[in-house]
Amino acid sequence: MNDRLRRYVPVLDWGRDYDRRTFSNDLVAAVIVTIMLIPQSLAYALLAGLPPEAGIYASIAPILLYAIFGSSRVLAVGPVAVVSLLTASAVGQVADQGTAGYAVAALTLAFLSGAFLILMGVLRLGFLANFLSHPVIAGFITASGILIATSQLKHILGISAHGHTLPQMLNSISQHLSEVNGTTMFIGVAATGFLFWVRRSLKPLVIRLGAPPLVADVMTKAGPVLAVVTTTVAVWMFGLDKQGVRIVGEVPQALPPLTLPGFTPDLINALLVPAILISIIGFVESVSVAQTLAAKKRQRIDPDQELIGLGAANIGAAFTGGYPVTGGFARSVVNFDAGAETPAAGAFTALGLAIAAVALTPLVYYLPNATLAATIIVAVLSLVDLSILKKTWAYSRADFLAVSATILLTLGLGVEVGVASGVAISVLLHLYKTSRPHVAEVGLVPGTQHFRNVLRHSVETDPALLTLRVDESLYFVNARFLEELIQRRVTEGCAIRNVVLMFSAVNEVDFSALESLEAINRRLADMGVGLALSEVKGPVMDRLERSHFIKDLNGKVYLSQHDAWLDLIGAPVTPAPDNPGTDT
Amino acid sequence: MNDRLRRYVPVLDWGRDYDRRTFSNDLVAAVIVTIMLIPQSLAYALLAGLPPEAGIYASIAPILLYAIFGSSRVLAVGPVAVVSLLTASAVGQVADQGTAGYAVAALTLAFLSGAFLILMGVLRLGFLANFLSHPVIAGFITASGILIATSQLKHILGISAHGHTLPQMLNSISQHLSEVNGTTMFIGVAATGFLFWVRRSLKPLVIRLGAPPLVADVMTKAGPVLAVVTTTVAVWMFGLDKQGVRIVGEVPQALPPLTLPGFTPDLINALLVPAILISIIGFVESVSVAQTLAAKKRQRIDPDQELIGLGAANIGAAFTGGYPVTGGFARSVVNFDAGAETPAAGAFTALGLAIAAVALTPLVYYLPNATLAATIIVAVLSLVDLSILKKTWAYSRADFLAVSATILLTLGLGVEVGVASGVAISVLLHLYKTSRPHVAEVGLVPGTQHFRNVLRHSVETDPALLTLRVDESLYFVNARFLEELIQRRVTEGCAIRNVVLMFSAVNEVDFSALESLEAINRRLADMGVGLALSEVKGPVMDRLERSHFIKDLNGKVYLSQHDAWLDLIGAPVTPAPDNPGTDT
Repeated sequence: MNDRLRRYVPVLDWGRDYDRRTFSNDLVAAVIVTIMLIPQSLAYALLAGLPPEAGIYASIAPILLYAIFGSSRVLAVGPVAVVSLLTASAVGQVADQGTAGYAVAALTLAFLSGAFLILMGVLRLGFLANFLSHPVIAGFITASGILIATSQLKHILGISAHGHTLPQMLNSISQHLSEVNGTTMFIGVAATGFLFWVRRSLKPLVIRLGAPPLVADVMTKAGPVLAVVTTTVAVWMFGLDKQGVRIVGEVPQALPPLTLPGFTPDLINALLVPAILISIIGFVESVSVAQTLAAKKRQRIDPDQELIGLGAANIGAAFTGGYPVTGGFARSVVNFDAGAETPAAGAFTALGLAIAAVALTPLVYYLPNATLAATIIVAVLSLVDLSILKKTWAYSRADFLAVSATILLTLGLGVEVGVASGVAISVLLHLYKTSRPHVAEVGLVPGTQHFRNVLRHSVETDPALLTLRVDESLYFVNARFLEELIQRRVTEGCAIRNVVLMFSAVNEVDFSALESLEAINRRLADMGVGLALSEVKGPVMDRLERSHFIKDLNGKVYLSQHDAWLDLIGAPVTPAPDNPGTDT
Repeated sequence: MNDRLRRYVPVLDWGRDYDRRTFSNDLVAAVIVTIMLIPQSLAYALLAGLPPEAGIYASIAPILLYAIFGSSRVLAVGPVAVVSLLTASAVGQVADQGTAGYAVAALTLAFLSGAFLILMGVLRLGFLANFLSHPVIAGFITASGILIATSQLKHILGISAHGHTLPQMLNSISQHLSEVNGTTMFIGVAATGFLFWVRRSLKPLVIRLGAPPLVADVMTKAGPVLAVVTTTVAVWMFGLDKQGVRIVGEVPQALPPLTLPGFTPDLINALLVPAILISIIGFVESVSVAQTLAAKKRQRIDPDQELIGLGAANIGAAFTGGYPVTGGFARSVVNFDAGAETPAAGAFTALGLAIAAVALTPLVYYLPNATLAATIIVAVLSLVDLSILKKTWAYSRADFLAVSATILLTLGLGVEVGVASGVAISVLLHLYKTSRPHVAEVGLVPGTQHFRNVLRHSVETDPALLTLRVDESLYFVNARFLEELIQRRVTEGCAIRNVVLMFSAVNEVDFSALESLEAINRRLADMGVGLALSEVKGPVMDRLERSHFIKDLNGKVYLSQHDAWLDLIGAPVTPAPDNPGTDT
């Protein structure tokens, strides 16, 4: 079989060894995941501002396509909380919730996101996701969790409110507080309390009662199903929908429909940037989960192939009435723990959800929105982890700054501004740190050939010789810093006749740094000071030799710092040449 | 005297030692610079789309203020070509040329630029200018030179044309070609030819005739004055202005007026980004010149003080009828070569220009715009240096990409997009390069304690021990790369029981990299593989010890790689712990 084809279509690989034992393991996992996904899919659709069936549809074709193209054996793809929030924020800017335009925009967003992911995968650009630093991701996920939980308060209280930032939401909620529906609030608060109890206390309780951990785990995950059934039955029995409790209502009893995303230039223009953002955030979340789970079985995933798998899943969502999807943390862990061995488990889950879409939708008619909101709130509050602030504060102030700025900007200005600023801040902080590299003045450790920092060690130095060890690659951001540093040192130390730059830790010299070195050489020459290099690495030297710098150097390049020391100590003043080229 | 005050107001420093010899040197330099500046100031005002006197005004108060606050002794501040072009581009977006709004917007631009520069100086943010890499600056200056020269063609041809990008300009010129004024074109072409001849051939000729280089130099710089006088007289004598030759016309005979910038929120909103761009580009140009000149006298400049000096100059321009200014290359070199010793030379130049503004403006009534355009074209074409393309191609493809993108985007989409894209491209290329650090698998050089790359040297290795030397600081951009690399190596080499990371070239481990190391440790533990570190630098170790990583490490931290080798070679399989924390 063609190896290249197998790389791009992993199903051809694992499909060959599929046997009965694997089949039964996959089937059991699929049943457990399906039960968990039904309320979750409805809830995330509500969060994205879409009709409930969109959540189910977004879990069927995407799972199948990921099973064919994805590289992780256990990742479960579908709607997730953060991507649903991002969808609501992006689509809310081009259409009003509940309109046909809103659903079409969500399809378009999924299509663009899928196309972008596939493009990145084919171009093997998976590494771009690395520009999101861990503190930015952690800050963003935490802030998103807070935003999502706040956005669901309106369903718990039975009021209408809106907004995409924390101040907007809180302000809107406070303006509508007088409209609170008591019955809705009772259901919402009870469901939330119950689900918190299930999550916190049920599992230890069941284990204490003697059940095996897997059973306890399944019971815990089934908590939302119980809440859904109980509140639905309550609404139906007591006719609570007539007392103003909002319910899911009619859900079409059908397989996912064939749908077409919109391709008008205006729509694409408005959604392209959010689509890219959703793609990258979804990809990062997905890859982290997939990598963690793969490592447990000494398997590995291929990030570029993951891009193609997730891209195919989103294209699938776009044409079958869904919205943007990615690999979810909770569902993947459940899938893994339940014993899934291959992506076929995902295919069986899709089948289970398809059956639910055809057969079970009438049963959720009386399901109150407040219950779905409660499941969302409980699920996302586990994402909120403010300990990242404490951890980064202890470890590095720069990382703390990145995480706190990301949290504040995401809460205050919305998810898109928040994550974009987080990336920009991380990059700027990194550039800032490397813009002032550690440069040590070194001297000879007596009796050895070693050179060490004059500030930390007792070393021999010579007033006529300044040796600087540069502890960073030289590139445009720190090139001028080196120029200024040498200028300052040499104008301060009038006895200096030679400067040696020790390049042992310089892994790269870019064109800007080359020009700075040329300027340093020229200026030192103007002052009658020589410039030499020592311990230049092979690849750096190869490159320097392609320029005029080595030829014009007002001194030599020494293999070792010790050679430089022997040659230059007590050296005579280098004659100043006649202003070479400074005036052109 | 208060040292802090003297740092912020350098005049208090050099003013104390001012004597008669310095005075006469400064005075001579001032006379030469004044003669050169009169036509140049008028020409650059034309380029900026402002009335000619704005160029003179922009050279008076700014020079005085820079003399007080600037740190360079010879930098000459005033209108320069690139900043004039940027002004035309920015102000052209909020007002039409020739309207009162246009002049006010130019004042506002100068004010915002000055305020931003002072702010950067007070916050000591001068290093931010380093984000402009040399290739980006070179590409931008070259493309600006081409844009400026093209923008002046309309004055040479005597037609109206407009546009801020090369395609726009060429298109507009071609549409108006039928309106070419023959007399104007004759003056323009003759003046351009004459000035090119002066620049290329006059200086060698005069030197060959026996004149000292300084005289030859002054004669060359006086070329524009001669062209101005000749063409003005020609227009006046033959009444060429009645044949459609556009002339400078009435220029108010007055000292710089007191003016007020506009402070409406709309105006500030529209001009803030261009003002920041102008500030940074002007600052970079200025600092390069000042540093080169200071080095020749073993003096140094203080970049943060330069920001304050240039900021004060721009605030001065804003309140005296000018527009954004910076330290000019040509004028500063002339000032230096003519023997200026202190900023007092600048003050005398300001006096000279003030006299010109009061007494000489009637003389330029008949000066044709075509002559001014010719002086601009000849001046800026010396900025165009396409050899940077060849140099960067030979040295580094990444730098070549940055410079060519900057040139093409500046020409095709305008100066602001061009320079912003150039910065973004440089930063991205740098991040890309560090995102895939060199990681070498090393082994023991027989008979020594040294460890070298297994691919380049004949070394001893042990199939159960994988030692990787990481040649880059670890931070968010390359953290995941290391995760994937180790995962791949370990899943491929099933005999591996211990992994050692040799940290000799790792200068930093940020929080993302810490989390990646923790993930690597956890995943290796899941596979029953140990993880050890060796040769960790002091500051890196200090930081790692502030986290749980060292405590949780499934192996030791060794002082030297040789210690690690002795300890781990032939080591038994590390037992896999019970999935520590992977599931949380």
